[in-house]
Amino acid sequence: MERMRTTEVMSHVGERIRVAGWLHSLRRMGGINFLLIRDGWGLIQAVAETEEEIAVLQPENVGVESIIVVEGLVKSEPQAPGGVELHELKIELLNPVSEIPPISLNKRKLNAQLNTLLDHAAVTNRHPLRRATLRLSAGIMAGFRDILTSRAFTEIQTPKIVAAATESGANVFQLDYFGRPAYLAQSPQFYKQIMVGVFERVFEVGPVFRAEPHDTTRHLNEYVSLDAEFGFIENHFTVMALLRDVLAHILQTLNEDYRSELELLKVEMPRMPEDVPTIHFADAQELILKLHKTDVRGEPDLSPQDERWLGAWAKQEFASDFLFVTGYPMRKRPFYTHVDPERPEYSNSFDLLFRGTELVTGGQRLHRYQDYLAALERAQLPLEPFEYYLEAFKYGMPPHGGFAIGSERLLMQLLGAQNVKLTATFPRDLNRLVP
Amino acid sequence: MERMRTTEVMSHVGERIRVAGWLHSLRRMGGINFLLIRDGWGLIQAVAETEEEIAVLQPENVGVESIIVVEGLVKSEPQAPGGVELHELKIELLNPVSEIPPISLNKRKLNAQLNTLLDHAAVTNRHPLRRATLRLSAGIMAGFRDILTSRAFTEIQTPKIVAAATESGANVFQLDYFGRPAYLAQSPQFYKQIMVGVFERVFEVGPVFRAEPHDTTRHLNEYVSLDAEFGFIENHFTVMALLRDVLAHILQTLNEDYRSELELLKVEMPRMPEDVPTIHFADAQELILKLHKTDVRGEPDLSPQDERWLGAWAKQEFASDFLFVTGYPMRKRPFYTHVDPERPEYSNSFDLLFRGTELVTGGQRLHRYQDYLAALERAQLPLEPFEYYLEAFKYGMPPHGGFAIGSERLLMQLLGAQNVKLTATFPRDLNRLVP
Repeated sequence: MERMRTTEVMSHVGERIRVAGWLHSLRRMGGINFLLIRDGWGLIQAVAETEEEIAVLQPENVGVESIIVVEGLVKSEPQAPGGVELHELKIELLNPVSEIPPISLNKRKLNAQLNTLLDHAAVTNRHPLRRATLRLSAGIMAGFRDILTSRAFTEIQTPKIVAAATESGANVFQLDYFGRPAYLAQSPQFYKQIMVGVFERVFEVGPVFRAEPHDTTRHLNEYVSLDAEFGFIENHFTVMALLRDVLAHILQTLNEDYRSELELLKVEMPRMPEDVPTIHFADAQELILKLHKTDVRGEPDLSPQDERWLGAWAKQEFASDFLFVTGYPMRKRPFYTHVDPERPEYSNSFDLLFRGTELVTGGQRLHRYQDYLAALERAQLPLEPFEYYLEAFKYGMPPHGGFAIGSERLLMQLLGAQNVKLTATFPRDLNRLVP
Repeated sequence: MERMRTTEVMSHVGERIRVAGWLHSLRRMGGINFLLIRDGWGLIQAVAETEEEIAVLQPENVGVESIIVVEGLVKSEPQAPGGVELHELKIELLNPVSEIPPISLNKRKLNAQLNTLLDHAAVTNRHPLRRATLRLSAGIMAGFRDILTSRAFTEIQTPKIVAAATESGANVFQLDYFGRPAYLAQSPQFYKQIMVGVFERVFEVGPVFRAEPHDTTRHLNEYVSLDAEFGFIENHFTVMALLRDVLAHILQTLNEDYRSELELLKVEMPRMPEDVPTIHFADAQELILKLHKTDVRGEPDLSPQDERWLGAWAKQEFASDFLFVTGYPMRKRPFYTHVDPERPEYSNSFDLLFRGTELVTGGQRLHRYQDYLAALERAQLPLEPFEYYLEAFKYGMPPHGGFAIGSERLLMQLLGAQNVKLTATFPRDLNRLVP
């Protein structure tokens, strides 16, 4: 008999079927034994009314997480997960587990300390809550790719070992490349811009590396970046319009294809407005002064408190969980940022705040070779390490721009998780290199 | 007027439309000027019958690769690319290019030396032949993801910075992780196995890093690996059956959605047989002795010459471009390889040869904790660096296996390219870190 997935069993009431998976739990209640079997997709209950049926699970050395194959008759049972359970069992033991897992996988909640959870991620990730979280990561990637592919974007994969730092010399991991120094890419920024010269519209889903030497609840030293970049834009508002649609599609993908995960995790899904409220950086600072009597004018960036205030304002005024802040000051943005032609101290860039926290950064980039030469000089950066990158501009680039979404950060904020390490599969931080 | 893509113009004969892109070429023939405009998807011809129409392109400093916007009337013209051309032009110059590109982008062939092509990859990749090649990379990734998603596999992203080498201590890049040594992942092997414990069926598309200190036509130091791993298999034949279907689907995706690229590159697409011919390693060595009077029995691996002979045999005997070789000797396979229970000197592993060259490696892995302890001892490897990995097995794993396809290698062999560096977007080799 072919084994089926636990999530397929509900449509086989009255038939004998076979499932396989992990022994999630085994409870004895008044002579009846209730087994939960977990496979890669869900859980199913099996009921053994005789000791003989579970004889193979009786020895001392057979505990939870043992691998078993269970054949049984499917009966409807509204109380059971999925509305069905198995009876008249025939159980085969494939791989016994004798030790008790360091994390309780069959408790409804995950109650261990963060470090314990992360130390044992190989086991922790099996818990239904963790698994649902990580499955949503897959949904985010799928939604991102789907909409961009449907808009004629081409997927690229760019090098992660690079000769020079992208954003700045700081916060970059150095490695030994056959005796020479090399670095891990902090972002695919330069490469995705170069590839706009090839495909016009490109995206990448891949790891980026930040050697930030601090341990916060919002930062990872390695994370998965969802990058998009495209040409023939008008300005950063063209980029913001695309970003709005991309996030709307990701949310739709989760709502449609990841219903059970969202329910299990009790996610309050945001609604993406057709027109996302938008405020200029300078106006945002004026607003903060007016509403909160705090003068942050002249500051080159928004503080986390500023972002929370602005998020609350967007929620109250526009009933929106999302807010675009545009025109960040040039002096805080990287050298490739396009200036606002009408107010040169400000840039054609934006951040997207989600529930009062920065989620996405993006903007229009410089596209003229001469502008790059001037920008590098202004930033007092040498030309030579950037020559391969500048070649794209020397030989013709259209006005272009793009954005980068941190996928673990997006998931953290969707779930209201307390720490981004809980939305990464195997997080890397200052002290953590395993698992 | 909204700009449209060049590939959309053919269905607008008789209308005035607008395109934008790179000035691919400008030829003057008897007072008439022929422009080719290249955008992210294709080429379109525009015909200027007066000097006035192209006045904006006349100054000395406007050369090929300049960014232009062209409005014109669509006329049917069977000789032109796409069967249409633009007339009565209105041209806008968005970004002029004055220097002549280091690579001729408007010649049919790419004739430069390999090093010149790679040094200027930012420009080279714009050539229609290069672009078609890189677009096929996107098709390979899409086909891989589609079929695995349709079979209930979950996409994962695993860490690239790791605490210990995967396959062996050699050939691994070392980096400075906040003062501690760390390494770049040589493969997601351990993590994808751990994640079989979570999702049962997983895949990953991501970079892998091999510090192999030699410069060959078949190796890259960073490449994109298409990894799959899944549980509840019978043995390596279950894995081979999945691999057959995955490759068949990738080929189908290219045949259906990447027709124009395949034609431009004159790719001779292979046919994937329903039943891929399969030969055991030991029988393959006997066959080589019989057919070629060369005794390779006792060798622990197949040489490139052996693979070519076997490939030719599969082609002649079974009219197949593909051949599975199974049961490679245990002593040449990594410690996590599952032994052949009936012939313990051989393993439950395989290679897939494509046109006489190894394309994919895979097999069944060990799944019992005790087997891992024994295997590590046999391999004289210490336990400690693997403890996080072994935890997955300590707490229950089903029989499982998987495979890894080198995406650039697959593309190289499909195209019959002479060097795998030509099927990578920005290759990394012993001497090359840029672009």
